[in-house]
Amino acid sequence: MRVEMANVVGVVMGSISDWPTMKLACEQLEMLGVPYEKHVISAHRMPDELQEFGKSARDNGLKVIIAGAGGAAHLPGMIAANTTLPVIGVPIKTRTLNGVDSLLSIVQMPFGAPVATVSIGDAGAKNAALLAAQILATTDNVIEKKLQDLKHEQRVEAKNSEQQFD
Amino acid sequence: MRVEMANVVGVVMGSISDWPTMKLACEQLEMLGVPYEKHVISAHRMPDELQEFGKSARDNGLKVIIAGAGGAAHLPGMIAANTTLPVIGVPIKTRTLNGVDSLLSIVQMPFGAPVATVSIGDAGAKNAALLAAQILATTDNVIEKKLQDLKHEQRVEAKNSEQQFD
Amino acid sequence: MRVEMANVVGVVMGSISDWPTMKLACEQLEMLGVPYEKHVISAHRMPDELQEFGKSARDNGLKVIIAGAGGAAHLPGMIAANTTLPVIGVPIKTRTLNGVDSLLSIVQMPFGAPVATVSIGDAGAKNAALLAAQILATTDNVIEKKLQDLKHEQRVEAKNSEQQFD
Amino acid sequence: MRVEMANVVGVVMGSISDWPTMKLACEQLEMLGVPYEKHVISAHRMPDELQEFGKSARDNGLKVIIAGAGGAAHLPGMIAANTTLPVIGVPIKTRTLNGVDSLLSIVQMPFGAPVATVSIGDAGAKNAALLAAQILATTDNVIEKKLQDLKHEQRVEAKNSEQQFD
Amino acid sequence: MRVEMANVVGVVMGSISDWPTMKLACEQLEMLGVPYEKHVISAHRMPDELQEFGKSARDNGLKVIIAGAGGAAHLPGMIAANTTLPVIGVPIKTRTLNGVDSLLSIVQMPFGAPVATVSIGDAGAKNAALLAAQILATTDNVIEKKLQDLKHEQRVEAKNSEQQFD
Amino acid sequence: MRVEMANVVGVVMGSISDWPTMKLACEQLEMLGVPYEKHVISAHRMPDELQEFGKSARDNGLKVIIAGAGGAAHLPGMIAANTTLPVIGVPIKTRTLNGVDSLLSIVQMPFGAPVATVSIGDAGAKNAALLAAQILATTDNVIEKKLQDLKHEQRVEAKNSEQQFD
Amino acid sequence: MRVEMANVVGVVMGSISDWPTMKLACEQLEMLGVPYEKHVISAHRMPDELQEFGKSARDNGLKVIIAGAGGAAHLPGMIAANTTLPVIGVPIKTRTLNGVDSLLSIVQMPFGAPVATVSIGDAGAKNAALLAAQILATTDNVIEKKLQDLKHEQRVEAKNSEQQFD
Amino acid sequence: MRVEMANVVGVVMGSISDWPTMKLACEQLEMLGVPYEKHVISAHRMPDELQEFGKSARDNGLKVIIAGAGGAAHLPGMIAANTTLPVIGVPIKTRTLNGVDSLLSIVQMPFGAPVATVSIGDAGAKNAALLAAQILATTDNVIEKKLQDLKHEQRVEAKNSEQQFD
Repeated sequence: MRVEMANVVGVVMGSISDWPTMKLACEQLEMLGVPYEKHVISAHRMPDELQEFGKSARDNGLKVIIAGAGGAAHLPGMIAANTTLPVIGVPIKTRTLNGVDSLLSIVQMPFGAPVATVSIGDAGAKNAALLAAQILATTDNVIEKKLQDLKHEQRVEAKNSEQQFD
Repeated sequence: MRVEMANVVGVVMGSISDWPTMKLACEQLEMLGVPYEKHVISAHRMPDELQEFGKSARDNGLKVIIAGAGGAAHLPGMIAANTTLPVIGVPIKTRTLNGVDSLLSIVQMPFGAPVATVSIGDAGAKNAALLAAQILATTDNVIEKKLQDLKHEQRVEAKNSEQQFD
Repeated sequence: MRVEMANVVGVVMGSISDWPTMKLACEQLEMLGVPYEKHVISAHRMPDELQEFGKSARDNGLKVIIAGAGGAAHLPGMIAANTTLPVIGVPIKTRTLNGVDSLLSIVQMPFGAPVATVSIGDAGAKNAALLAAQILATTDNVIEKKLQDLKHEQRVEAKNSEQQFD
Repeated sequence: MRVEMANVVGVVMGSISDWPTMKLACEQLEMLGVPYEKHVISAHRMPDELQEFGKSARDNGLKVIIAGAGGAAHLPGMIAANTTLPVIGVPIKTRTLNGVDSLLSIVQMPFGAPVATVSIGDAGAKNAALLAAQILATTDNVIEKKLQDLKHEQRVEAKNSEQQFD
Repeated sequence: MRVEMANVVGVVMGSISDWPTMKLACEQLEMLGVPYEKHVISAHRMPDELQEFGKSARDNGLKVIIAGAGGAAHLPGMIAANTTLPVIGVPIKTRTLNGVDSLLSIVQMPFGAPVATVSIGDAGAKNAALLAAQILATTDNVIEKKLQDLKHEQRVEAKNSEQQFD
Repeated sequence: MRVEMANVVGVVMGSISDWPTMKLACEQLEMLGVPYEKHVISAHRMPDELQEFGKSARDNGLKVIIAGAGGAAHLPGMIAANTTLPVIGVPIKTRTLNGVDSLLSIVQMPFGAPVATVSIGDAGAKNAALLAAQILATTDNVIEKKLQDLKHEQRVEAKNSEQQFD
Repeated sequence: MRVEMANVVGVVMGSISDWPTMKLACEQLEMLGVPYEKHVISAHRMPDELQEFGKSARDNGLKVIIAGAGGAAHLPGMIAANTTLPVIGVPIKTRTLNGVDSLLSIVQMPFGAPVATVSIGDAGAKNAALLAAQILATTDNVIEKKLQDLKHEQRVEAKNSEQQFD
Repeated sequence: MRVEMANVVGVVMGSISDWPTMKLACEQLEMLGVPYEKHVISAHRMPDELQEFGKSARDNGLKVIIAGAGGAAHLPGMIAANTTLPVIGVPIKTRTLNGVDSLLSIVQMPFGAPVATVSIGDAGAKNAALLAAQILATTDNVIEKKLQDLKHEQRVEAKNSEQQFD
């Protein structure tokens, strides 16, 4: 049974204040039937836990990591430094710079530790879940089918949205 | 024999002028033993080919797509619109805006069609290859081993670089 | 009778959420007596419809296309890739980057597929309608007369606005 | 005979130093067989000539205006203030701010005087010519045919560019 | 009697919507006893009036002009093109780009038509009044005395503000 | 005799490295017959001299101050803090941020100490000289005449520049 | 007794309007048991007091200075110009540019007068207090112990925050 | 003898390619007689060494750390996460974004792990050395004297630079 599968996606965030955004990633993973676990790991307050999480992620059965952080956002890149699993970075919108700082801190990684960066904020969090599922779907037909269905639904929804013209 | 494997990564670029950068992605894929194919597909000059490429990519055996483009860079996102394969976007450095336009055009995708964006320019192209390999390595131990080896080499190289202090 | 004329302007938007802005373009077209049709065509959710719309636009009698989109805004440019009709792009204001992402994604088109970009947000939508009318007015005296009248009214309105000094 | 047609496009630039860029627009117009005239009209040194040019443009037979300017680029917008002809703005790349100043000064027009803005620099100048031709082609089949041919050529050229992989 | 003096400062704004900001300049001029007149002159809707205002300003007795505008803000620069009086530009804060567009459109003037640009928004409007008074004070001891008094008051006020620590 | 007049403009710069730009201001002042003096006053290395310069400027006969500085450019604003003379700020182009840092450090002054900011770099330096002359010309007909002549020459020069089309 | 120690940190701000942010620095210093004094010193309204404060700071027993300012923020750099004590700069968030102006005005100091810049706004103010304590802790074991304790508490707090997942 | 003192400043950089900039910090420390050690520690290639360096820095006798890094610059912040020593961050100029990415990645730290950020590039590296010396000088009169001397020399040098006017 799928729901008893081990967690394959690890969703981490730099602060509990990122939860309203990162929750959207979790909800999307659930809708796609992807087992996941979630953690708060502050790169700057819990550097040991960050190292430990990164180094043990593969052995713990994870296949993809989604990491959200804001400001001088070091979490995604530092996890990528500690694993060869694909790491997806979600730039959290910030109060002062609207997430431009988060985006540049996450995306501008040097050769050796790529972070798959998605858009700033809520849309990015949801897309991170899709991207994680897409990665799993390269060898998982069930998830692939769900992604195809979602794509179809979104197309239908977009088409029907014209009924909302007033 | 590995070298006879079907291509699993598709490297596409919006213009032949992107080749000097995207070539670095190809070279990195070769070093990691990942079979790939490469194409010039201009989103704005070859929209039909773009659609066709996206729609048939999975059936053609591809598992990951790397797409590089500059300026109003629509190639990565439009491929993502046409496939559920993971698409990695490389923002090409531009003459006027240094690639900020490429970056925002690629990374700021709405929910439904994520693009895994890497850093601007050459480092990004090389990281795109690593990221593609990481995705394949979620279920391929041979590539995983090569990624581990590369990570080890890079660590040793970084450590030894202190000898270059003058 | 003018009102029975075929639609000559196509107003498209990437999402129904763009409607509050794009509605302003439609209202302005109505005030200028320009027959138009309107559609939601998401570049990323409805890529086939986008292609179809672009390729058939001229044959369907359209003379100008107004396309509004936000974030990684690919709609205007991808329509321009599929037609030789003039395409006017409206950068929708975004929550995170205020429309800078939309602007750069729309305006920075490479040679071959120009997009006539107007200002970000509501003023841009209204100006897009004016620009479409100006294009039609190059060979339509009735619309030209209406544009001249509007210009005159705006001048009078601006002059009279001094009465609002308090 | 086409070559004896009156000029229908006016190409203006704010300074002779913009000529290397704006020349590309002129060359493109020639390739498309569009009769044009060209002028240096500095908004800040020749404000009377600017007014006169704008006000008389339509009566002089022009149908579209292409205006290139850099820095605090007021030329396109001020011409638009003086005519109801469509005005295409080309943001010239600047030494200090790379044309971001030109772009914002041109594109952010208020309601009433739209400027059809194209990309910064050389690509923008060439696209301005295409856009002008597209506008003319809404009622000119000969130009429309040339635009279709150019689109076809660019597609073929893009496809064949793969031969340049090394 | 001073209050019967002819107006020496002209305060102009591109739109009545700039009045809440430009009003602060007027109030400051009143506090400094500088006679002024105020006008709405939209560069894009009232280009003839703009020209006329600029050309006749000196003959009308004005000595300094304060011009506020937002977005693609052409008013200050175009007045400067039509007069040799000093022109002070106030970049109005905009809804989409917070006045960055206004600032660059006003400050980045080419050689020949300088605009004395002050800070974005309300502080800028008040500073524009001070700057105008400073210019007049180069040959007017009464205004100079008032500026000295204001500087003294502001110093005292700043010092005393420590009482507001809570 | 004019050349024996006391200096009325003080040109200061934060570093001798700003001289190549600020020299253009000096040359322009000479062409306009405006007596000036020039100084290097580093805000951060010579704060006492800065204070002294600002406080004594009026008594020393200066009527306008032109201050050029780059990076965290504090010179213009700090002089403005110490005098009620009009201070013109020239943002020097910087190697890392192209003068955006200089511009914001100079223009964004709070209420009480305005700095009349001109464009970044060489054009700004030349415009600063014009602006200083414009301020003097509010009560000096000789300078006013020279400014009118310069404006006329620039207009003629701009018009004649069309001969350089190739 | 520690509480009777002379003040070792001077907290200054450019305006009483910065107090809501700078108060956070003061509160943090209190929590760490660091004696401090606080002042409003406007660089532009109180330049003499600024000079005096900088020059006498060391003799008055201060060891570290925290200076917060917004916009064209000259306070931190000008204090640094007048002392060899370490100066920590807090960029205050601004209404128009969100503190980007403050940040660049503070951080981009030339060689000779460094300012230790922290993040924009409230987090920056609190971090400034930490940084001041870290500087003192280089030779003060009591403060060092408190910093270690705070680091430990923050780690525990971050770990426990997972309980707030809903 | 001073030269036999233990190293009190640790200079680290993320890559040997940062050496040309960071060397300037080292040279400045030598001129000030501050014993230092230098290391290449790549945050992304040597995360274990980074952790180890941060955790043992205080016990190893260091009092201040200078860390330079570029792009998604995580080194300074991650060291700060692992120590309570003051950490000075030097944003290295980057090829694509000129160091804006480095700056934001370094300065925008959340509460708990401050990084004392200096200006981008070479000036920043030299200032980092000064700042480190200033921190040491809070309790070291010898270094304090050298800093005073340097400040005096720089003042004299700035004054004398006027001789370079040509």
